[in-house]
Amino acid sequence: MDSKLVKPFKSFSSFTRRDFLYRAAAVGGTGLLLNTMNAWGMGIGSTMSAPPALSGSGKGKKVLILGAGLAGLTAAYELGKLGYQCQILEARAFAGGRCQTARKGFSLTELGGEKQTCEFDEGHYINHGPWRIPLHHQSTLHYTKLFEVPLEVMVNDNDHSYVYSENAGPFAGKRMRIKEIKADMRGHVSELLAKSVKNNSLDQELTADDKRLLLDYLAHEGQLAGADLQYKGRTGRGFAVNPGAGLSPGPGKQSDPLGFKELLSSKLGNVYSAVQDFPMQNTMFQPVGGMDAIPKAFEKRVGKNIRYKSEVQTIRQNDKGVTVTYKDTATNKVSTISADYCLCAIPLSVLRQIDTDFSDKFKQAVASVAYAPVGKIGLQMKRRFWEEDDNIYGGHVLTDLKGINTISMPSYNFQKKKGVLLGYYQYQTAAIEISALSPKERAEFAVAAGQKIFPQYQDAFENAFSVAWHRVQYNLGGWAEWTDKTRAAAYPTLLEGEGRIMLAGEHLSYLTGWQAGAIESAWQQIAKIHERASA
Amino acid sequence: MDSKLVKPFKSFSSFTRRDFLYRAAAVGGTGLLLNTMNAWGMGIGSTMSAPPALSGSGKGKKVLILGAGLAGLTAAYELGKLGYQCQILEARAFAGGRCQTARKGFSLTELGGEKQTCEFDEGHYINHGPWRIPLHHQSTLHYTKLFEVPLEVMVNDNDHSYVYSENAGPFAGKRMRIKEIKADMRGHVSELLAKSVKNNSLDQELTADDKRLLLDYLAHEGQLAGADLQYKGRTGRGFAVNPGAGLSPGPGKQSDPLGFKELLSSKLGNVYSAVQDFPMQNTMFQPVGGMDAIPKAFEKRVGKNIRYKSEVQTIRQNDKGVTVTYKDTATNKVSTISADYCLCAIPLSVLRQIDTDFSDKFKQAVASVAYAPVGKIGLQMKRRFWEEDDNIYGGHVLTDLKGINTISMPSYNFQKKKGVLLGYYQYQTAAIEISALSPKERAEFAVAAGQKIFPQYQDAFENAFSVAWHRVQYNLGGWAEWTDKTRAAAYPTLLEGEGRIMLAGEHLSYLTGWQAGAIESAWQQIAKIHERASA
Repeated sequence: MDSKLVKPFKSFSSFTRRDFLYRAAAVGGTGLLLNTMNAWGMGIGSTMSAPPALSGSGKGKKVLILGAGLAGLTAAYELGKLGYQCQILEARAFAGGRCQTARKGFSLTELGGEKQTCEFDEGHYINHGPWRIPLHHQSTLHYTKLFEVPLEVMVNDNDHSYVYSENAGPFAGKRMRIKEIKADMRGHVSELLAKSVKNNSLDQELTADDKRLLLDYLAHEGQLAGADLQYKGRTGRGFAVNPGAGLSPGPGKQSDPLGFKELLSSKLGNVYSAVQDFPMQNTMFQPVGGMDAIPKAFEKRVGKNIRYKSEVQTIRQNDKGVTVTYKDTATNKVSTISADYCLCAIPLSVLRQIDTDFSDKFKQAVASVAYAPVGKIGLQMKRRFWEEDDNIYGGHVLTDLKGINTISMPSYNFQKKKGVLLGYYQYQTAAIEISALSPKERAEFAVAAGQKIFPQYQDAFENAFSVAWHRVQYNLGGWAEWTDKTRAAAYPTLLEGEGRIMLAGEHLSYLTGWQAGAIESAWQQIAKIHERASA
Repeated sequence: MDSKLVKPFKSFSSFTRRDFLYRAAAVGGTGLLLNTMNAWGMGIGSTMSAPPALSGSGKGKKVLILGAGLAGLTAAYELGKLGYQCQILEARAFAGGRCQTARKGFSLTELGGEKQTCEFDEGHYINHGPWRIPLHHQSTLHYTKLFEVPLEVMVNDNDHSYVYSENAGPFAGKRMRIKEIKADMRGHVSELLAKSVKNNSLDQELTADDKRLLLDYLAHEGQLAGADLQYKGRTGRGFAVNPGAGLSPGPGKQSDPLGFKELLSSKLGNVYSAVQDFPMQNTMFQPVGGMDAIPKAFEKRVGKNIRYKSEVQTIRQNDKGVTVTYKDTATNKVSTISADYCLCAIPLSVLRQIDTDFSDKFKQAVASVAYAPVGKIGLQMKRRFWEEDDNIYGGHVLTDLKGINTISMPSYNFQKKKGVLLGYYQYQTAAIEISALSPKERAEFAVAAGQKIFPQYQDAFENAFSVAWHRVQYNLGGWAEWTDKTRAAAYPTLLEGEGRIMLAGEHLSYLTGWQAGAIESAWQQIAKIHERASA
């Protein structure tokens, strides 16, 4: 891997605000965008909901597929249906690529790191790669349906959870319920606009009818009370005393809103979206038992065509076909395999280190795309304190704590004894810096940070499993990170492939970092192979 | 039952807007409040999360419990732990009261109606009583946890679903994605307020700092673009062409916002809440397999103390104890049972028809509380078209179609072949009028109405199961419907009980219509019995 990425760990003060706002531009917001972490993949659904309808036959033709991630698996499955003879070479001992689930016994050794073996209790896991299937990703959902992979709801939106920032002015260092911020900001802002409307200061914009309708809307949106349309709180922000039975608590006791000026100066009104961004909308799914249920379902169908522990060494082609040498990682024996065509679903971050006979232009394109440093950690807690004490069931704590970004509560095993939290989800320099720590130090870092939000953290913590994708062999990054410049310079070249070799993967889509990107890319690229093979 | 409630069915035009806005006042909004149906229970969470810690013993004392609904079951379980000898009389052949699940073979004969037997396919069901467990209802969640009733997420909020109104001005008769309305209203309104701020028309309210912070907030909330802070759409409203792989669709194509004036005159901005009302917030739960998993879990523990098919005929007490006669509904044999105390968890709507020796004041209190006419229908569809064609997974279609109110998509069996929709959820005169129809006619009504929103309805419809709670023997209504007047006049009297008889149930709470109301009421009332018995 690119060792320049792994800088020595410095102090937290060396983290820059830029890292944190890294993705802010993509979602068009300004200010403190705690929820940028929610934007991974950058605003994105998928439009293709079924594989391309290809006619003709691939009988008698061989396609060599490099990599058994979602793109490679999809290609093997669909090309197999057309009659192609597919062979997948996969460097790991299992399929799925980045789609992995860490559960008891799962092990990972990052480049230059110590071996981690997951010690979660039976029945607990963390999806340390992809963890969410948006409703808009009909391509991924095509296969979960076809293969009967049971899905459950992944709670991706939970206003009862907390936002925590140490830079939130009057609310700095205090955990706040997201719903309080949301209710009160919308209440105060609606009241302010109502005042403006009533004072006729918008008469140039609005007719009398518009004004009446707008005031009606604002009264509803902000839940403004009385003829003077004031915001005085609402049940949605929570009660001071919850209603119940009898006379006490009886109707309960309403809570008082936070002050408008305090809210404004805290900037916490900028942490949630007025409407969830496209890929983040309800309903969000996860496969029951772990995301790797998807590659496992593919393996059932195309597993016989996968040669595992086969690390690609060289790629060569001529006008007759493609020849690849690969090393068996168990025996170090190098073998050769040939095919009529090749679909290379290896991440560009890895492909650029492989010996190929691509043209200089193609090699340059492969080399030009950045890959995202990304880190995640699963923390097993001996008690689901977030449910028991805080009544938070799934969803995310939004925070700008450096190197944390989000703490996510599991959407499975509700009300059971133990649970595995996502302790951080990092990008860029934060991910690079934390990844330089040992697994034990990473866990200590995550627990110390989480302790600021949940005082139960330290006592409940049992064990951890972390990944730094930029340090994982055969991935070397979380996902392709395109810029306008590289999209213009390299993307069309890479899409075109070269000779008898086509590329596929999330990197050849606008759904980077999502399984749907890999699947839809495979759908497009196998259509091109089929077209060339049928010509 | 009260036959005055069942008026002959008239034409739809006789439905009044008042019915629809029936609950609007409770949530404080104005205008077209399609989501008032979401407010059932009226704004309400529960504050008690565990049964009262009672000391002492009930050994040697008998408590007779009338009704094996959630209140009666809770009382029997908790009093049993204290050593009381509890006997429950239950009129039905099963426990749960209104907490019922209709699945294959479940049958129901409403008063004066024909017998319905549920014909849903195996594995499908409708919770035609309570169907949601809010995170705030820690009392209900206390028992699901204690009894290890597995929960799954009930999708209660889905912006990708539709709103449909025939009174929505320019959007009348068109189904609209809720997210489009939400994104565009908040975008336009934010733009308008930003304009007002920039024009200095709010300078009396805001300092220069406030103005800067508010503009930042508005730019985020409305996703306003450019220096002139205009709203030009956002990904959260959906794409015209979704992004995907390759060059086409590649980045996809943004969609254009709806016009502000059209939105205002449609009033559709008033159908959702700025923040979900208290009981409706994420995370919402349902027991896996049906809500009746909760009474079944109680039955496992206290079932031996329940005498089923035992219809209470008379209730008498003196200073020594309570005597109740009941009829075995299988044999018509009348028997007598005595106990030291009685907890009566029979709905007031039924209790007022039973021969008791309550004081006139108490009888008057029992008689004074109105019960809500409520109707629900489950529609089995041979194809999950809402998922397959519309990509809606759970959640509700909000509508003001008379007698429909909501169509709700099931939050289980995602991606399976068939599914059971909630076809309507009616209150008040709509519920009364529709309930006068035969089961077959109700289904025809629901399918014809649903067809306006989903053209696939008629073709997909297979069979239905409906309930009109005001016509169900032993319930005679959905829930107690308190007014300020009856709360003042009757509530304290009923809470106090009389002599050796205490009442319990959702009707003695501010969580009417919720299981939590019944449970928390039981918790309070058994504490009073224990206090009296220990005195």
